[in-house]
Amino acid sequence: MKLSPLQIARYEYKPKLPGMLRNGIAEISVKVGEKTSSVADQEKIAALFPNTYGKEEITFEKGENTSVAKVRKVGVILSGGQAPGGHNVICGLYDALKATNKENELYGFKGGPSGLINDDYVVFDDEFINQYRNTGGFDIIGSGRTKLEKEEQFEVVVEVCKKHGITAIVIIGGDDSNTNAAVLAEYCAAHNTGIQVIGCPKTIDGDLKNEDIECSFGFDTATKTYSELIGNIERDANSAKKYWHFIKVMGRSASHVALECALKTQPNICLVGEEVADKKMSLSRIADYIADSVNARADKGDNFGVAIIPEGIVEFVPEFSVLIAEINELLAGKKTDEFNALPSWEEKYAFIEKGLTPESMKVFAILPVGIQQQLFLERDPHGNVQVSLIESEKLFSALVKDKLAARKKAGTYKGKFSPLHHFFGYEGRCAFPSNFDADYCYSLGYNACMLIQYGYTGYLSKVSNLSKPAEQWVAGGMPITKMMNIERRNGEDKPVIRKALVELDGNPFKYFCAHRESWAVNTEFTYPGAIQYYGPAEVCDITTVTLALEKE
Amino acid sequence: MKLSPLQIARYEYKPKLPGMLRNGIAEISVKVGEKTSSVADQEKIAALFPNTYGKEEITFEKGENTSVAKVRKVGVILSGGQAPGGHNVICGLYDALKATNKENELYGFKGGPSGLINDDYVVFDDEFINQYRNTGGFDIIGSGRTKLEKEEQFEVVVEVCKKHGITAIVIIGGDDSNTNAAVLAEYCAAHNTGIQVIGCPKTIDGDLKNEDIECSFGFDTATKTYSELIGNIERDANSAKKYWHFIKVMGRSASHVALECALKTQPNICLVGEEVADKKMSLSRIADYIADSVNARADKGDNFGVAIIPEGIVEFVPEFSVLIAEINELLAGKKTDEFNALPSWEEKYAFIEKGLTPESMKVFAILPVGIQQQLFLERDPHGNVQVSLIESEKLFSALVKDKLAARKKAGTYKGKFSPLHHFFGYEGRCAFPSNFDADYCYSLGYNACMLIQYGYTGYLSKVSNLSKPAEQWVAGGMPITKMMNIERRNGEDKPVIRKALVELDGNPFKYFCAHRESWAVNTEFTYPGAIQYYGPAEVCDITTVTLALEKE
Repeated sequence: MKLSPLQIARYEYKPKLPGMLRNGIAEISVKVGEKTSSVADQEKIAALFPNTYGKEEITFEKGENTSVAKVRKVGVILSGGQAPGGHNVICGLYDALKATNKENELYGFKGGPSGLINDDYVVFDDEFINQYRNTGGFDIIGSGRTKLEKEEQFEVVVEVCKKHGITAIVIIGGDDSNTNAAVLAEYCAAHNTGIQVIGCPKTIDGDLKNEDIECSFGFDTATKTYSELIGNIERDANSAKKYWHFIKVMGRSASHVALECALKTQPNICLVGEEVADKKMSLSRIADYIADSVNARADKGDNFGVAIIPEGIVEFVPEFSVLIAEINELLAGKKTDEFNALPSWEEKYAFIEKGLTPESMKVFAILPVGIQQQLFLERDPHGNVQVSLIESEKLFSALVKDKLAARKKAGTYKGKFSPLHHFFGYEGRCAFPSNFDADYCYSLGYNACMLIQYGYTGYLSKVSNLSKPAEQWVAGGMPITKMMNIERRNGEDKPVIRKALVELDGNPFKYFCAHRESWAVNTEFTYPGAIQYYGPAEVCDITTVTLALEKE
Repeated sequence: MKLSPLQIARYEYKPKLPGMLRNGIAEISVKVGEKTSSVADQEKIAALFPNTYGKEEITFEKGENTSVAKVRKVGVILSGGQAPGGHNVICGLYDALKATNKENELYGFKGGPSGLINDDYVVFDDEFINQYRNTGGFDIIGSGRTKLEKEEQFEVVVEVCKKHGITAIVIIGGDDSNTNAAVLAEYCAAHNTGIQVIGCPKTIDGDLKNEDIECSFGFDTATKTYSELIGNIERDANSAKKYWHFIKVMGRSASHVALECALKTQPNICLVGEEVADKKMSLSRIADYIADSVNARADKGDNFGVAIIPEGIVEFVPEFSVLIAEINELLAGKKTDEFNALPSWEEKYAFIEKGLTPESMKVFAILPVGIQQQLFLERDPHGNVQVSLIESEKLFSALVKDKLAARKKAGTYKGKFSPLHHFFGYEGRCAFPSNFDADYCYSLGYNACMLIQYGYTGYLSKVSNLSKPAEQWVAGGMPITKMMNIERRNGEDKPVIRKALVELDGNPFKYFCAHRESWAVNTEFTYPGAIQYYGPAEVCDITTVTLALEKE
């Protein structure tokens, strides 16, 4: 295997731990805080988690380590999409386990939760672990999207753990995976298995955060990578002065990623799904909003610009959601075959026209043909429209083009409009973790070991005060049930960790609102450049603008 | 304007000059070398450039500066597409001019060559220049694609220069722009205008190089940026283990960019246009070549991979070039209207079927519908197919999909194939220049001033020995005519700088060939990570693998 110079150099990086974890394992004591209760639906959640509900928040501090000394075997899995820093969570966990007792062992189950069920694992040693320090990706053991949520699965998990003598599992995942971690923890406690379960908050999407978890890991590195590219494109736009770039960024439903990138790069336009939903904006209104910026800039002679489009935007447009639901209905079951049998697009179009309500047909009719065809031709195994595949960057640029054509006809717009399209997602999920993510993840893993050592279960590894230097970070744990409420999922009431959407009264969005009118018309681009791992601290170690504004 | 932390930090960077230029202006003397002759067609070129042909190569060395001391006004333009480091060429030129004589002035003509013709300019001062040190983009004065090649234009240029008292022009551009710089130099010399013209070799495409010019600036930064992204995607592919990524990279006709990225990232597949042309490979054969890799990896259980596709690839496929020519013919003049009037794609298809030769129709028929429609629906102002817009990454993945379906039917392939597509171009043209490009460009500009100071014209600023530390770089100048030959362009014989394609017997391609069979089947990805500006020299200061191999 040929290693890049950066990878070789990054092996030498020593992640920064929170100050209170820096005195060696023997000097880490527990401070037990207040008992917790869930953020909503307390009675229901308490009833569902009789053995793990209501436990105390805990923090670590410098003091005598009073945890039980025994040899431990711990299992770890990576769950869901990649996020930079996952390797470091495992490295931190491994180092803390070995520092506690050289006989301790860490099992990495391969390919996500299914590895735990299939008993497919590797036992880590120094040589193996050292190849992955401060690197991106989840390739150390792979990841997967199997959901660990059913009793039959839990039985197998317990069986596998007992076979190896594993007494604790660390689950590195997003909101769903950590919800499931809490359910597994409750199962293990209820059945007196002696198995602890600890979660770690992962996702580049930034939607796993709350009053306890300041941010999920990976969000910092991914948004820095996307912002590098957006900044480079802004500089290109401002040099060539002839293209409008429509840039879609990953992030699933929530618009945290798009907003953070906008705060870093100051583009002309950034759509925010949560605002679109709140204001019940139609596609036409959104297109007009963008066209206003194109128009105002063209009036100044600037026929170029940059617009950021969050991946999940279309789900937030009320009329579009209705259209999608109708299409799913229209093609349900055997109707798909009937539709597919129609020989030409013209005949298919007539079929669609007959099947949709007039309101939805009006929405459908304004879509560019490419998107129309995509909605009908590329469906998931259940026959549903694949919303995440919709090229919304092309959708909006096409709608804007129509708006501008109408304005030109009316004599109110005289510019040129040449759009280009980009989608950034896979580029950022496996970047080398920023110093922040390298430090944060290593700390999360190290801290998870301490939670295990002190006997906790159903807890999320918690490191906070993250907008400050690592020395001042606070390490501890929070019962996962504390973050839960009851939500309707697939027709059932389920206890889940509340997904964090962009808060329209939060500081990051308010800051954006205070500046976006000026950004829309003027050229106030900011160019962040590539992530730096060396050099001045203000270039290398500072985390997101979102967190800085939230902590103001 | 809000500056990013990196931009503020980069302002402080002091670009490294070649050792021989580090002793101060007073200590730079000229060493005159051999008289030169053009690489081919010597008599024709000599006849076309009677005043500037056959001059000596020159190098600078430490020694008494014997140049004529007088106050100078110099003009500079950026020509063509953006390349990282353009700002530093101007900064180096400015600093050398001011160090020579504080009264010297640098005029920046705006928006490319047209700025020179329209007399649209800015006179630089410290405050202005300092905002652009070590930054990406061409936004300092903008660029443009107007060609400066006609006598009428030259007359205007001379007039503008005389008006301001400008006695030298520096043209920062690619092969065409530098060809035109030589023609302008000859014109100015023939007409005793007293105006010198110096060129600087710019292009991210890497196709302006020869035995004198080791590389054009911007190639280093752009390929590092693309390789960062390709490496991140490779790591994602190797973590998720379920996608094949087809990645198109910019670079116009030549495959230098794709090849350099492949040397840095070791993907499973990298197409090289020059090889495709040499072996006269058909689309079908290329698709089979890729499918072989997909197939072999699937047999090992690896249903994922990465393929790099150079932007210019389709131009090199003989049968495809023929198809494009036939389509252009088929839609020439009024036939476009006839075609556009056909109401459905089915009828258009019938029109195409009737119009193409059976051979070309066979090629056309295997293309995915999206590409078929693109070829006919999106044409340039002259009605020609826009080859550069062809989504060749999607073209090849669709062809591979067909190949795999046939193999599955035949029972020789049992894998899954889920392709994803990317195109990287605008992301790299305006990145903050790498230390190499920052140093190289600053040196090119500084050196251009020395060439002016010593009275040279029709020269390209030349800095060589670039695979070594900057201390050992060699600064000098080479007559542009030395790099010229006669080529047929638009039905005319023209003196031009020979465009450099990938040499199939050169070291970079040979190294690639020696490894690609293993890369195609195994997972030997290398992850370069983001460009670093600080930290260990082996991470920050080393230029391309291409140059290292060429200098072996």
